Amino acid sequence: MNGAESLVRTLVGGGVDVCFTNPGTSEMHFVAALDRVDGMRCVLGLFEGVVTGAADGYARMADRPAATLLHLGAGLGNGLANLHNARRAFTPIVNIVGEHATYHLQHDAPLTSDIEGIARPVSHWVRTSPSAEHIAADGAAAIRAARTSPGQIATLILPADTAWNEGTGPAAVEPPPPRSKVAGHDIRDAAEALRKDGAGTLILITGQALRLAGTTAAGRIAAKTGCQVLAQTSNGRVERGAGRFSVERVPYPVDQALARLKDFRQVILVGAKQPVGFFAYPGKPSVMTPPGCHIIRLATIEQDLVHALEWLADEVAAKDTPPKLEPAARPGLATGKLTVDAAANAIGALLPEGAVVCDEAVTSGRGLFPFTKGAPPHDWLQVTGGAIGLGLPMATGAAIACPDRKVLALEGDGSGMYTVQALWTQAREGLNVVNVIFANRSYAILRGELANVGAQNPGRKALDMLTLDRPTLDWVDMARGMGVPGSRATTADELNDQLARAIATPGPCLIEAVI
Amino acid sequence: MNGAESLVRTLVGGGVDVCFTNPGTSEMHFVAALDRVDGMRCVLGLFEGVVTGAADGYARMADRPAATLLHLGAGLGNGLANLHNARRAFTPIVNIVGEHATYHLQHDAPLTSDIEGIARPVSHWVRTSPSAEHIAADGAAAIRAARTSPGQIATLILPADTAWNEGTGPAAVEPPPPRSKVAGHDIRDAAEALRKDGAGTLILITGQALRLAGTTAAGRIAAKTGCQVLAQTSNGRVERGAGRFSVERVPYPVDQALARLKDFRQVILVGAKQPVGFFAYPGKPSVMTPPGCHIIRLATIEQDLVHALEWLADEVAAKDTPPKLEPAARPGLATGKLTVDAAANAIGALLPEGAVVCDEAVTSGRGLFPFTKGAPPHDWLQVTGGAIGLGLPMATGAAIACPDRKVLALEGDGSGMYTVQALWTQAREGLNVVNVIFANRSYAILRGELANVGAQNPGRKALDMLTLDRPTLDWVDMARGMGVPGSRATTADELNDQLARAIATPGPCLIEAVI
Repeated sequence: MNGAESLVRTLVGGGVDVCFTNPGTSEMHFVAALDRVDGMRCVLGLFEGVVTGAADGYARMADRPAATLLHLGAGLGNGLANLHNARRAFTPIVNIVGEHATYHLQHDAPLTSDIEGIARPVSHWVRTSPSAEHIAADGAAAIRAARTSPGQIATLILPADTAWNEGTGPAAVEPPPPRSKVAGHDIRDAAEALRKDGAGTLILITGQALRLAGTTAAGRIAAKTGCQVLAQTSNGRVERGAGRFSVERVPYPVDQALARLKDFRQVILVGAKQPVGFFAYPGKPSVMTPPGCHIIRLATIEQDLVHALEWLADEVAAKDTPPKLEPAARPGLATGKLTVDAAANAIGALLPEGAVVCDEAVTSGRGLFPFTKGAPPHDWLQVTGGAIGLGLPMATGAAIACPDRKVLALEGDGSGMYTVQALWTQAREGLNVVNVIFANRSYAILRGELANVGAQNPGRKALDMLTLDRPTLDWVDMARGMGVPGSRATTADELNDQLARAIATPGPCLIEAVI
Repeated sequence: MNGAESLVRTLVGGGVDVCFTNPGTSEMHFVAALDRVDGMRCVLGLFEGVVTGAADGYARMADRPAATLLHLGAGLGNGLANLHNARRAFTPIVNIVGEHATYHLQHDAPLTSDIEGIARPVSHWVRTSPSAEHIAADGAAAIRAARTSPGQIATLILPADTAWNEGTGPAAVEPPPPRSKVAGHDIRDAAEALRKDGAGTLILITGQALRLAGTTAAGRIAAKTGCQVLAQTSNGRVERGAGRFSVERVPYPVDQALARLKDFRQVILVGAKQPVGFFAYPGKPSVMTPPGCHIIRLATIEQDLVHALEWLADEVAAKDTPPKLEPAARPGLATGKLTVDAAANAIGALLPEGAVVCDEAVTSGRGLFPFTKGAPPHDWLQVTGGAIGLGLPMATGAAIACPDRKVLALEGDGSGMYTVQALWTQAREGLNVVNVIFANRSYAILRGELANVGAQNPGRKALDMLTLDRPTLDWVDMARGMGVPGSRATTADELNDQLARAIATPGPCLIEAVI
């Protein structure tokens, strides 16, 4: 059994049984091994940003890592932006990156590059496997690293001769270290702060704290102490909807964030970091909490956040306090002009139970969260690292993880173009993804940002860099070209009809919502 | 004048007057400055791989650097693969990469990443400009670095406060150091080798040696001494066609390369490196020259290669020896079934004088070079770093550099998908690009490579990773979606007609050649 097959068997044995791929010559032994090993599902992407974004979406929903298969430094480079997002979502991923045969590297062939150097800025763990005898153990170590809390990016570089030489057979994967628990004195300090000034306290949460058990415990604490609970601006996955404790997010715009947080006298951080602006702006602060606000760092992202919140609920005697649950309530369908709010109404009104929402709607999406809070229970996934081009790939991966659920990709037209190739993979795999493209024909967020940085009356050259209307992108044509049926909605009524039909129809589709 | 404007004025003053952009918030001051500075042409790409690939194509044809404008580490990451290609083509590029304000970095906001770390593997020169007082001088240093022989990638990181604070106004750009000349004794040694065994000698050239003056000098030497002249497998730009000395390339497939080189007893390297396999294969050598072949390193890529060849021609008394010039000759148009050869016939028969051919046709393109050698004079640009996804962007940039010439992008369907967004930029800018997509509906090169590495009878799972036929990509739909008119050719006659019409029509178009 060669090194490649030893690695594939190690992956499957270690519970990594989906591999998103865009292989090249140096990965051909890995590809050939797939035919000899049962249990690995391989999903081809036509661009590596699709591959890494899909791996992110998959693991967010499956709660275990997928593998990626990437072609040397250039292929890894193409996948870098979505690995950055995955790193910021604490998503476990095992990257397998092909490399030249070890003895060939000295010749500096055209594709030779510093793969470890490219990998390091987005990886928690990087290793080049030196030989076929090492690859199984290295693969097992990569899986363990990926699974280490809070979820890590592990990049294993696989030289071609490590793949093709005789290997050892598969290696067993050691379980990752358990999540550490917060200390009792930290719980008692936080409880004391809550008892002293509940109304002046914000509990800021992210990560696992946004799963149902975490938000429920946070909701009990809020009901008991009068504190508020918010999530970070961007989060990997939120379990929310009717019958659950509803958690708002810190707003993205700096002025809104400052206003939302201005009255808090203390903030308890559970997985989250002290909130800061996504960007700095001249004359505005970087930190969003008010001066003098007391920051209580209860639990870091690596720790057991649900345990921390449940223990804190106990400590403030809220164990049996019912949280305020979101009532089932949907907005009505709008009619007439298709506005951002009309689109949000349609999504809130029609979102099916168990939906997985992949939100990269950028400016068009800011209203979506409140409009859906009373919809049937669903998951909400965001772009955590700010690198646009995740939405369509993330939806693709989430749909692989959750074949029985409906996935909605809510996507800006600007951001959607970065990784538009994801549509083809959705078609090939027959995935249940409804792609809604908010077509405002501009980088609308940048129009606002240009004003924010002090350029109030931009001229033609600046505006040309922010508009997508010359020529107009036709998303229905592009989707058809990749095998995904599409339609265009130019009124609220059209969107309502098309979205209802899309949700009722299996397989992928795309709606271009012209707003 | 703020830092951003000081930088833009430095760029324009330093001859960098085209900027390929995909900006974000942190680049808004740079964008705003564009309105205040005359002379900078800005070209928007909807994905950063388009931006960097276009900058490569532009500089190959303009012989001076363009700038790119990229959004933090994630944007740079998206552009990395084509910067790798540009580095391997010795293309000068000035990357401007936005960064958070210096004081904001400590907060590790979502988009924060190690930009210098991401830049280094593809850059010869990397600098983060620490303040608005430094940015003009840093910009001037970046231009000088990019222009330093043989052409370098300079990456200048621009923190937002460096852009928005008060700057110094533009800085002057120092001229780069001159190309070094080869030493007289190296010329004399090479001449001696040629006199001793001309027939057993290969002169292997790349870089500037493939411009007209270089190939002409090489052709004189060949005519005088009986040596042969070859180019590397992949080269940034070759000036060729009827009435010029024709230079074949070392074949890509290892067995063909070994066969082509097996009889040479000495190789004189002029800019080129000793030829090695693009990849290693089990049981095959890495080095393509035969054992015992004497390697004479006459000039490295940084040196003045044309001067070296002209001096060598003098030294072997070939100064007035006419090189064997390629006769004007075009293949006839094929009829009937659309094969790779029929397509090559069409291109050879119809290629207009002064065409710029951007060749990323991969397996479909191997026959194109011989079929066009007697076509009217033209330039031939290749993917030099092996990272596919360069063809369409490179054609886009070449067309910006050469508005009066026709650009042909010869593109595989697999490779074209990586940066398909380039079509939109072609439409927006009204560029004279004919995009010919060779649609074999597979990663055909990998079918061969799978066999080469020893997997002779691949199973379904492996084959699924190499085929693009489920669903079939419709390139005409995709092009229309991005504003580029397209057509599909399924016979040789259709391709002949469509290509003739496309060449005669201004503006971009796309032909899907189903082979």
